[in-house]
Amino acid sequence: MERVFDLDLVLAEVRRALEAGQVEEAVRVLSDQRPADMVDVFSELEEDEQVDLLPRLETEDSADVLEYLDDLEAADLAGELSDTDLARIVDEMEPDEAADLLGDLGPARSRAILAKLEDPDEISPLLIYHDKTAGGRMTSDLLALRRRMTVADALDAVRIGAPVSSAETLYFLYVVDRDNRLVGVTCLYDLLRADGQALVGDVMSPDVIFVEPDRDQEEVARLMTRYGLLSVPVVTPDRVLLGVITHDDMVDVMEQEATEDIQKLGATQPLDRNYLDTSVVTVARKRVGWLLLLFLTETLTGSVLRHYETELAAVVSLSFFIPLLIGTGGNAGSQTTSTIIRALALGEINLGDAWPVLWHELRVGLMLGLVMGAVGFARALMWHTPFTVAQAVSLALLSIVVWANVVGSLLPLLASKLRVDPAIVSGPFMSTLVDATGLLIYLQVAKMILGI
Amino acid sequence: MERVFDLDLVLAEVRRALEAGQVEEAVRVLSDQRPADMVDVFSELEEDEQVDLLPRLETEDSADVLEYLDDLEAADLAGELSDTDLARIVDEMEPDEAADLLGDLGPARSRAILAKLEDPDEISPLLIYHDKTAGGRMTSDLLALRRRMTVADALDAVRIGAPVSSAETLYFLYVVDRDNRLVGVTCLYDLLRADGQALVGDVMSPDVIFVEPDRDQEEVARLMTRYGLLSVPVVTPDRVLLGVITHDDMVDVMEQEATEDIQKLGATQPLDRNYLDTSVVTVARKRVGWLLLLFLTETLTGSVLRHYETELAAVVSLSFFIPLLIGTGGNAGSQTTSTIIRALALGEINLGDAWPVLWHELRVGLMLGLVMGAVGFARALMWHTPFTVAQAVSLALLSIVVWANVVGSLLPLLASKLRVDPAIVSGPFMSTLVDATGLLIYLQVAKMILGI
Repeated sequence: MERVFDLDLVLAEVRRALEAGQVEEAVRVLSDQRPADMVDVFSELEEDEQVDLLPRLETEDSADVLEYLDDLEAADLAGELSDTDLARIVDEMEPDEAADLLGDLGPARSRAILAKLEDPDEISPLLIYHDKTAGGRMTSDLLALRRRMTVADALDAVRIGAPVSSAETLYFLYVVDRDNRLVGVTCLYDLLRADGQALVGDVMSPDVIFVEPDRDQEEVARLMTRYGLLSVPVVTPDRVLLGVITHDDMVDVMEQEATEDIQKLGATQPLDRNYLDTSVVTVARKRVGWLLLLFLTETLTGSVLRHYETELAAVVSLSFFIPLLIGTGGNAGSQTTSTIIRALALGEINLGDAWPVLWHELRVGLMLGLVMGAVGFARALMWHTPFTVAQAVSLALLSIVVWANVVGSLLPLLASKLRVDPAIVSGPFMSTLVDATGLLIYLQVAKMILGI
Repeated sequence: MERVFDLDLVLAEVRRALEAGQVEEAVRVLSDQRPADMVDVFSELEEDEQVDLLPRLETEDSADVLEYLDDLEAADLAGELSDTDLARIVDEMEPDEAADLLGDLGPARSRAILAKLEDPDEISPLLIYHDKTAGGRMTSDLLALRRRMTVADALDAVRIGAPVSSAETLYFLYVVDRDNRLVGVTCLYDLLRADGQALVGDVMSPDVIFVEPDRDQEEVARLMTRYGLLSVPVVTPDRVLLGVITHDDMVDVMEQEATEDIQKLGATQPLDRNYLDTSVVTVARKRVGWLLLLFLTETLTGSVLRHYETELAAVVSLSFFIPLLIGTGGNAGSQTTSTIIRALALGEINLGDAWPVLWHELRVGLMLGLVMGAVGFARALMWHTPFTVAQAVSLALLSIVVWANVVGSLLPLLASKLRVDPAIVSGPFMSTLVDATGLLIYLQVAKMILGI
């Protein structure tokens, strides 16, 4: 079928079965769905129903549930299961997902579960890597070929297969020497087309792109995108093959990082789980820090205004333009910042491009500033504003837009230079900074033109 | 090697060769690089060098250049080539990329090139679909299996292969009936493990996810992510197989859409090419419309302020808090909007969730509003603001934050209901709206409390 998003019927069926006490019927309906759909329906159930149902699903389905759920939800749910049930399910999970889950369960529980696993050695080495690195993302469940194997033997190895959890790890096949050091890469398709008696070492390409386990996940995703890789091997500094990162991980990372950038631009700490499943208190907590910090920075505007109290009292009409001017400055700055941040994230520009970027934005700012200055002048006159005030507004608009473009392009570059995430500092922080400095520009220009 | 981003040496080598007139040496150095790296170096060359060099590269490398470059750059470059050279290169490109390029060249040139192609039928059917749909993204270059083939024959078909441009289209193998209707899917790995004498129809899975050619590319990418697909087939309403969309297209779409969302949140129309390659005039043109529209909306704040002119003249200290209050409202609104937009984009919430979302944000707003109201009160007193003004500021802060959360959550949902892209309306438009309404709240509250 084309698309399976109307899962409400499935949910209703599962609920009906559960209410009638027909747990087996509920299990059957769920296991008929594709994994992503099954987990969607499952996550709509009440928490006690979930805890009740999870150990009764096929082990493979239970493993899918814990893999597809958001990390924190999966950990909550796993916390409610018995050690025996959980160990059985974890055994079926992909090693990298299993390691993530165990990491979220805390050391005591994690040790208890590891002790009960069939094959703890597949998972425990993964526990030492940070979640958001290549090591934390890789799976150790892979089939490596030997250089001196024949192609026919290699194809047999694929055919007999270890009990591989995912056929995806078989698309690219990595070749190692006798010390398990990575020496090349081939793919099923090339093996199939090669002479069966040829050696893998002659068929493989020795030019293989790899990463070390402490590499940041975002860089790994970028590398895979850049070179069109479906998987990338993870090796020690001595090139000993540790594991492989597959394309589904890359897609996860890309979504996660874009979400974080967008949320940071909105000045909120990234939520770690599904929006509606995040409690109101957590959402508020993720936002309050930034809101307070920006509030305190924004009080600078009050200091600027108090400094010009006499001028504002003398010409009240000056204050009518305050929100307009700083709003326009903020908008121009946001336009610049969002463009620069994305160009940085995509690697279109880097720190060495600071001067060209500044020069680019300075000219863009000048053009936009001239337009806004002219429009602002006309608008002010339409309000029957005194001619000199209109002049001040117009000149201030020009200066503020140019200034906002400069600040908006420099802040992300500066943040990136200081190794702070540019998305954090430069979105709302930029507009707050432009508010205060924009006011200063406006009132100083007004003071000079009006001679007050 | 681990990573190949220091391409400056390669670029220097190519430049040196070109300056010494050793074009063949330049070609050799370039063709030693991985495609993505080669194109990076190539795009650093001067335009006349590029035009000169492109037809002299290996045809395969020239095709890579036109595929990897941004669409508009590729079209510019192709515009400079002779019909014969361009046709030779287009013949080597992936059909979907070739169709995009021809689409960008205009009908006359496009017809001229098509007439010279070896296999125009691979490309011309793709020209009718819009770039950003499944039809525009698919490649027609694929190997479909027949249901009644044996597995051994199927493997032979893969082995002999048509001259497939990309081994990726071979990972998932689609199965059709005699009318070329899609009936199932299998993969190389399953074929390898199956008995050679079994029929493909018995090995395949009939449960195949497909899309029609007019489906939006973003939905296709979401479908592929959701179900972990490396490729998805495109079929007519009668299920006749037209082509296949591969995972590299999905990754492109994901990046493109995230970039567009981020740029729209910053109130700028998406740039269609690499930032530094976009001319200053184009960047300014992409921004000026929004900047003007927001400016005109923002003049509402002036009208509100003029309405309260008497009150502002009577108590000048009221105006000190204007940027602070509307800034905080804007920040609270952005926090909400960015969260909601991303949740919508990821499908975590949909239109039916309007009430739960509103209820969520109302409570978050109340919590944040109470905190900000208290902090604002203290800050105002520290400035020796009259007690009643501090009271007004505090109450206004509470109301404005709650209001901003409501507007910030409703606007993206409303936009999405009206089938307007939520990222466009709700970023800067939200903060402009909150500016004007926030002022109204503040000054009305102040008027009541101060009795002016």
